[in-house]
Amino acid sequence: MLTDMEIEKLSRRLRRIRGQIEGIERMINEHRYCVDVLQQIGAARAGLYQVGMIMLESHSRSCVVEAIKNGKEDDAITELMGVYRALHK
Amino acid sequence: MLTDMEIEKLSRRLRRIRGQIEGIERMINEHRYCVDVLQQIGAARAGLYQVGMIMLESHSRSCVVEAIKNGKEDDAITELMGVYRALHK
Amino acid sequence: MLTDMEIEKLSRRLRRIRGQIEGIERMINEHRYCVDVLQQIGAARAGLYQVGMIMLESHSRSCVVEAIKNGKEDDAITELMGVYRALHK
Amino acid sequence: MLTDMEIEKLSRRLRRIRGQIEGIERMINEHRYCVDVLQQIGAARAGLYQVGMIMLESHSRSCVVEAIKNGKEDDAITELMGVYRALHK
Repeated sequence: MLTDMEIEKLSRRLRRIRGQIEGIERMINEHRYCVDVLQQIGAARAGLYQVGMIMLESHSRSCVVEAIKNGKEDDAITELMGVYRALHK
Repeated sequence: MLTDMEIEKLSRRLRRIRGQIEGIERMINEHRYCVDVLQQIGAARAGLYQVGMIMLESHSRSCVVEAIKNGKEDDAITELMGVYRALHK
Repeated sequence: MLTDMEIEKLSRRLRRIRGQIEGIERMINEHRYCVDVLQQIGAARAGLYQVGMIMLESHSRSCVVEAIKNGKEDDAITELMGVYRALHK
Repeated sequence: MLTDMEIEKLSRRLRRIRGQIEGIERMINEHRYCVDVLQQIGAARAGLYQVGMIMLESHSRSCVVEAIKNGKEDDAITELMGVYRALHK
């Protein structure tokens, strides 16, 4: 579970990333130089990775710990590995 | 240089990614299960990577080839390596 | 803690990766075509990632679960996040 | 084409990476703490990425430039995109 402060912080980061994506759409339609667009794509991807890491840490500290304390460790770890593979792409 | 068809195709992909990001913001604010959110983050990142690869290929086939034919290979390759590194994050 | 069977399996994978690296060294010294060498480098990196995922899963199922059951969740998760970041590079 | 100096430099890096892999095999067989092993795996992967980037740059500056100047740009770029995808894993 995310705290209200975490939700606020993540929402702000996601809004900024959404703004970057809008910026990329605009740059493409304005025929801006590909290299500048590609740098922005890299920045948006890096931003999403940071959001993912923050959520993953929060998820681990709450849901995963809770699940393990309730003896549901097998499912919790299987799920965690799936998430990690999804984020790594 | 992107062709009009490439711009159309990339714009469509970017709109879809922007929709995914909005979805992630909503999911977070609705306290949805972190694992579902994390899978969406992974999907958005993978989508951005695909957009990056399409642009990188188009850039290589036009600007990089052009630059090399005009003897500006040193700068073109230096720039290309910078883009690779930016996309890999 | 890795089981004996896991150690055997990982050792076999690592020997194969070591063989790939030796192969890459040989290819470079024999002036083989860069693209073939680069494909091998990609394969060795992917192999190391698989080894990392196997170890990470085993570590999570044993040490992390153990630590959490003993109330040492804070350190265990901090360490886990550090490992994620190290593997992602 | 790699110069003799590049071959020497890459061979040295690859020998170091091979040593890291041997070290990882040893650590696993000595039941060393998984987290330390995982950090080493991350370091070896990062080392291979650097080797890949050096080769990719050298390949681009020689073979790709040569191919483009000889009008074989289509194949050269297709190959380059394949290499980039292979390295990214």
